[in-house]
Amino acid sequence: MRLSQMLFVTLRDDPADAEIPSHKLLVRAGFIRRLGSGLYAYLPLMWRVLEKVKRIVQEEMNRTGAQECLLPQLQPSELWKMSGRWDTYTESEGIMFALRDRLERELGLGPTHEEVITAIAKEMIRSYRQLPVNLYQIQTKFRDEIRPRFGLMRGREFIMKDAYSFHCDEASLKSTYEAMDQAYRNIFSRCGLDFRAVDADSGAIGGSGSQEFMVLADAGEDEILYTEDGLYSANIEKAVSLPTDAKPSRFSTYKKEPTPDTATIAKMCQCLGCDASNVVKNVLYQAVYNGGKTVLVLVSIRGDQEVNEVKLTNELTKLASHYESTNILSLTVPDEKEQQKWAAKSLPLGYISPGISDDYIAKNASVADKFLRLVDQTAVDLTNFATGADEVDYHVTGANWGNDFSLPKLVVDVRKALVGDRPVHDPNGELKTARGIEVGHIFQLGTKYSQAMGATFTNEQGEEKPLVMGCYGIGVSRLAQAAVEQSYDKDGIIWPTAIAPYEVVIVVPNVGDGEQMQVAEQIYAECQAAGVDVLLDDRNERAGVKFKDSELIGIPYRVVTGKSLKQGQLEVVKRADKSVQNLAIATVVPTLVTSIKADKKAS
Amino acid sequence: MRLSQMLFVTLRDDPADAEIPSHKLLVRAGFIRRLGSGLYAYLPLMWRVLEKVKRIVQEEMNRTGAQECLLPQLQPSELWKMSGRWDTYTESEGIMFALRDRLERELGLGPTHEEVITAIAKEMIRSYRQLPVNLYQIQTKFRDEIRPRFGLMRGREFIMKDAYSFHCDEASLKSTYEAMDQAYRNIFSRCGLDFRAVDADSGAIGGSGSQEFMVLADAGEDEILYTEDGLYSANIEKAVSLPTDAKPSRFSTYKKEPTPDTATIAKMCQCLGCDASNVVKNVLYQAVYNGGKTVLVLVSIRGDQEVNEVKLTNELTKLASHYESTNILSLTVPDEKEQQKWAAKSLPLGYISPGISDDYIAKNASVADKFLRLVDQTAVDLTNFATGADEVDYHVTGANWGNDFSLPKLVVDVRKALVGDRPVHDPNGELKTARGIEVGHIFQLGTKYSQAMGATFTNEQGEEKPLVMGCYGIGVSRLAQAAVEQSYDKDGIIWPTAIAPYEVVIVVPNVGDGEQMQVAEQIYAECQAAGVDVLLDDRNERAGVKFKDSELIGIPYRVVTGKSLKQGQLEVVKRADKSVQNLAIATVVPTLVTSIKADKKAS
Repeated sequence: MRLSQMLFVTLRDDPADAEIPSHKLLVRAGFIRRLGSGLYAYLPLMWRVLEKVKRIVQEEMNRTGAQECLLPQLQPSELWKMSGRWDTYTESEGIMFALRDRLERELGLGPTHEEVITAIAKEMIRSYRQLPVNLYQIQTKFRDEIRPRFGLMRGREFIMKDAYSFHCDEASLKSTYEAMDQAYRNIFSRCGLDFRAVDADSGAIGGSGSQEFMVLADAGEDEILYTEDGLYSANIEKAVSLPTDAKPSRFSTYKKEPTPDTATIAKMCQCLGCDASNVVKNVLYQAVYNGGKTVLVLVSIRGDQEVNEVKLTNELTKLASHYESTNILSLTVPDEKEQQKWAAKSLPLGYISPGISDDYIAKNASVADKFLRLVDQTAVDLTNFATGADEVDYHVTGANWGNDFSLPKLVVDVRKALVGDRPVHDPNGELKTARGIEVGHIFQLGTKYSQAMGATFTNEQGEEKPLVMGCYGIGVSRLAQAAVEQSYDKDGIIWPTAIAPYEVVIVVPNVGDGEQMQVAEQIYAECQAAGVDVLLDDRNERAGVKFKDSELIGIPYRVVTGKSLKQGQLEVVKRADKSVQNLAIATVVPTLVTSIKADKKAS
Repeated sequence: MRLSQMLFVTLRDDPADAEIPSHKLLVRAGFIRRLGSGLYAYLPLMWRVLEKVKRIVQEEMNRTGAQECLLPQLQPSELWKMSGRWDTYTESEGIMFALRDRLERELGLGPTHEEVITAIAKEMIRSYRQLPVNLYQIQTKFRDEIRPRFGLMRGREFIMKDAYSFHCDEASLKSTYEAMDQAYRNIFSRCGLDFRAVDADSGAIGGSGSQEFMVLADAGEDEILYTEDGLYSANIEKAVSLPTDAKPSRFSTYKKEPTPDTATIAKMCQCLGCDASNVVKNVLYQAVYNGGKTVLVLVSIRGDQEVNEVKLTNELTKLASHYESTNILSLTVPDEKEQQKWAAKSLPLGYISPGISDDYIAKNASVADKFLRLVDQTAVDLTNFATGADEVDYHVTGANWGNDFSLPKLVVDVRKALVGDRPVHDPNGELKTARGIEVGHIFQLGTKYSQAMGATFTNEQGEEKPLVMGCYGIGVSRLAQAAVEQSYDKDGIIWPTAIAPYEVVIVVPNVGDGEQMQVAEQIYAECQAAGVDVLLDDRNERAGVKFKDSELIGIPYRVVTGKSLKQGQLEVVKRADKSVQNLAIATVVPTLVTSIKADKKAS
């Protein structure tokens, strides 16, 4: 491509709304342009990057035997009502754009395609003989983000590769899941990314197990906990660890004590002269299920620990059927207004005990339909602990499960793992923290969707069974930006060679110089003949502008038809380290071909 | 690909909602599956067809110097309000899906991208030195169709290639327009289509000139008028012709005559004993402009001619600024209810004269803000004509413009050209009719969008001018189905080789036969090595099922490892004509390669 014929505009200044380097650079270098909140045009340079990423994704997916297809973006609401996700995705914090057609039929704009593919599988798959099968697509998805930001990282439109596999049993699912894990590692490696696979929460997608692929970068929105031995890494939403041991309790007998103005753990510990690990903290949540039920949830946890609300949501989702529901819509700590309403009704917030009576709750918190108690593992083994007395300004000390309070039946792990905690596999180790950008996520869905939507098959024994499913996503547009977030310097982007929009840029310092242009055209033609993606900067601009632009847009190799021409040589500059080689004209393209091949192999 | 590993299901019966052969065949052969009204999943076989069409489109577009990009599908309503098309596209018969985000901002789901690209050009293009430039994308578009039907032909989601070019003047636009015309001819030829380029109406897209590319097929929704000398062809919406001459009038003096119950031309002519060509027919329309103005339009036309409402809409659109508007929202002949309302107010519908007074209209048709008269060219030259008398059951005869009625100032061509009419270029010729499927449309937009949206550039003289634009669309998914509509037989689809999902299918009659499988695998490997797209039907099915399926899905060449194996030969069947060759094993793949190359070259 000749730059003089491209729509190519670079900007001197960072866009006002850009917070992170990759966003600034992609806009400044003319790769993307904002059309509206979270909406970007992919300009020709960016389109080339996306195509290269897509090609790598397709090659690795096809290698596993997956087949490409394309599913509708408009999705009838009935499908989402069958799976029970319509409300979760469109109400309250829902992130699905919903609309109505001219006949007032509700449609969603696909943020994901479990329902659609399950509906198709239900019609097409009858027998175990058709299994396993893995279908994927690369497509624009939509999310009505609460806060679109960071350019392509959190847009309202983004390009995803999503795959869905169908199996006759869990063993077959595991085998495809492992193949996808390997394919993903290949894809991210080939794209030149420094990434980490981590245990992940399955969130609104659901299923029994999932793993995220994180590109490591300070600007990442996700926090990862990991061990340096490489044996453990997890999203903090999902991470587990060994808590520190509780300090020995200084209490020995059960006693109610006045503790004025101690609604926080810190104040209470100070007042009672005890350690937070001697306390059973009781936190009240309000969970709203689809179908309309509101449940008050009392979580008892060791005083020095925090509740991980993602884990709590997962525990509560498991109980959905008890509340004639399939999904949880929202989980909130009652807000201030709500709290005042309750406090006015004399609910002793900040002083609740794990044994607070159902009647008391029912009388004082009429906002809820049900009341539920959970205890975190950390609180189970405590003895002689301090906790609330169900009376404002009073706590009890020296309490014990069994004697003073009955242990809640539901013992769960809802504790937030923290940096510095001991890893479960190595009590002498320590969890480290890093930030990451999620670029991939693979899920073992099991039968969540097939059961809800009646997608069954006949197994070898002639029995009708729900299809066992997996799903596998890659954020294609996000990946492209993550690559920049991981690879830039003060002068601009440094694209990994495998996904660079062009591999080589030929810069002609003076297009008025016939010899320069003639050699440039020759190298341009040689590059094209050798299959090198080459850009010719034949603009009638000052050499300085051209050098700056070539560094800003981050093409891996720059060939300059400059002063060294007199010696029959061309200058070849490597963008990554700015190293310069002067090469005889005839050796330039063969050298470039070798370097490009080496770059792609190394990554 | 091995068929045993594909999600491949063919159906015995035609889908209930399919009306045309291509729709039936694509569903039965497992290429597409309906998810909802006008919404289809493209299954793996179809995806391959679409990819091949896309590749051809990309190659031909890139050859012209156009650059690929990707624009958002969600489009802020403000852009459409700037161009004046928001109302036209979302209200009344509007075909754009509109929705609101969580902040209640209005968004449209892109049916086309003139506004988006103009907004981007406005920011990026400053100088004539950046021109011309041509950007294109291949993307799913959305239309809230009134009546989705015919499978992919008229879906609510469909894949389009849309290109937009920017120029400093009309001459540059024309040159790109011609390059696009040629590129389109190349694309449709390479796809193996029998097509025709026709003059077209520019419709809601606008601009000064446009041309459609029609795939000829009986099931086409468009009617084309053409001459056999190849010098004229046009969509009937746009077609012009020479009307037949009017018969000599039998009237000679102006007279008002009683004509009871003659509100139609036929009855009136019978009553008066005259020919319809002696009549000036006056048709009342109601036009609603965006901005809210309703205009009553009286069209006077020769009695044996019909009004072409597309042409009329175009004439009325030119007048939009007179009504403080930019666009026409709807054009209707007043419906029965409306007519009754008017008739009750004594508007003499069916008996109106071309001279009916403005006051009369204003008094009797309070539904309108304005009243407008137009006369079609066919009515201008009539003398001694018959027409309405502005009184129910009365007409006048022997009337003349100037004497009895003043000729409306606006003389227009709003006449519908009809099959059998004489072509303008050849008064002795005759217009023929054919049906076509529109697969491409190219437009000279001029400055319609750039002016409305303030997208200007500085020309060589330093003056600020609006960008001159063109736009160019291809219906990629529609094209794929049109290819089937043009090429099938009683047994199934006959894909043109260039866009077939696979070029060769190897059918193994008996997968239990070791020799058959071994030879099949050998041919399969040889095909892959030779770059042939090959499918291996290794399913454990009866041979008859496999032959039927291979014919239904329409792969151009079938290799059978059957009886002839004993003679060291394989049977090669050409799908198009079912001709059979028995070839020595070693010559099979080289022969296929030659045939495939010849097919692609011929088309």
